Amino acid sequence: MPTLKVKLSKRELIISEASKLFREKGFGGSSMRDLAEKVGIEAASMYHHIRSKDEILEEICFEMAHRYEAQLSETEVQDISYPEKIEALIAFHVQLIIDNANAVSVVNNDWKYLSKERMIAFKSIRNDYEKRFAAIISKGIEAGAFKKVNISIALFTILSSLRWVELWYKPTRGVTKEDLAKDISAILMNGVKA
Amino acid sequence: MPTLKVKLSKRELIISEASKLFREKGFGGSSMRDLAEKVGIEAASMYHHIRSKDEILEEICFEMAHRYEAQLSETEVQDISYPEKIEALIAFHVQLIIDNANAVSVVNNDWKYLSKERMIAFKSIRNDYEKRFAAIISKGIEAGAFKKVNISIALFTILSSLRWVELWYKPTRGVTKEDLAKDISAILMNGVKA
Repeated sequence: MPTLKVKLSKRELIISEASKLFREKGFGGSSMRDLAEKVGIEAASMYHHIRSKDEILEEICFEMAHRYEAQLSETEVQDISYPEKIEALIAFHVQLIIDNANAVSVVNNDWKYLSKERMIAFKSIRNDYEKRFAAIISKGIEAGAFKKVNISIALFTILSSLRWVELWYKPTRGVTKEDLAKDISAILMNGVKA
Repeated sequence: MPTLKVKLSKRELIISEASKLFREKGFGGSSMRDLAEKVGIEAASMYHHIRSKDEILEEICFEMAHRYEAQLSETEVQDISYPEKIEALIAFHVQLIIDNANAVSVVNNDWKYLSKERMIAFKSIRNDYEKRFAAIISKGIEAGAFKKVNISIALFTILSSLRWVELWYKPTRGVTKEDLAKDISAILMNGVKA
């Protein structure tokens, strides 16, 4: 079905350009007209591929949420130590942020513009993710692999420490993404103190 | 000069309500009309106290930037170890975020809406802050107090790890702000690994 294939890839292009635009101008500051211009098609023909700006935001948020979730499910059942599980998740976050900086930025900043119903669904996936991430920390403490830290504080310190990567990281800064993940992991696992 | 006093406090009230409003709706999504309603005065009389929405944003951003800067200047000259300096800065960040959650949120999210000229000034203060914070890490490494970490990665991991406090922390969660600062410091200084 070549027609369908073309339609899909135009849709992907729209979503990719939308991620760039929302990141730059914010969801509220971006119009479908701006987006059509970026994509290089008439505003009217954009609606053959996408219903609304809201639909684009939903697609970006849930696509990313599902990727995080899929990686977590895989990591949970891997036969590695608890610190290795956390390190694997940190490496995944770093890679996702670097490979999809625009989309990750939109999720971080613009999820609050989801419709009420979709926002509830999004928050529910996010809460589930945080609970399962926290459970790895908690089991690691029980197993004696982690210090007896406050689990919520550890959870959010780890997740939040990755936030800057989207804002700061450029390959030109002379740090590879592998080193970046390794160094962030090292700081969170072992601290900066000698 | 009682008239001046009243004017100042009305101005402060406007800025405080603006922080709440911008945090909730974003700078772009907030109108002077909404703000006047929150403050409980006529939109027209607001302009006796404040020139524009831009002026409010400037005041919020630079007020916060100067507080961070003042604390850093004090910490730099304190006669304590490098790890203690970083811990003092972490404690200050936590306290500032908890005591001024609305303003800190506005600075984090809306600084990019500053006018071009003010944005340059703001970024210059922020760069200066980051450089001086990095210098403490760098001197700490030289003194053997810190591991030989990549300084930029350590800097941004520390600063970014504090970001979630504004989004997550509520006194009702059973963690005092002193414990919060202490636990975040402990994770960054010594890591989570047993």
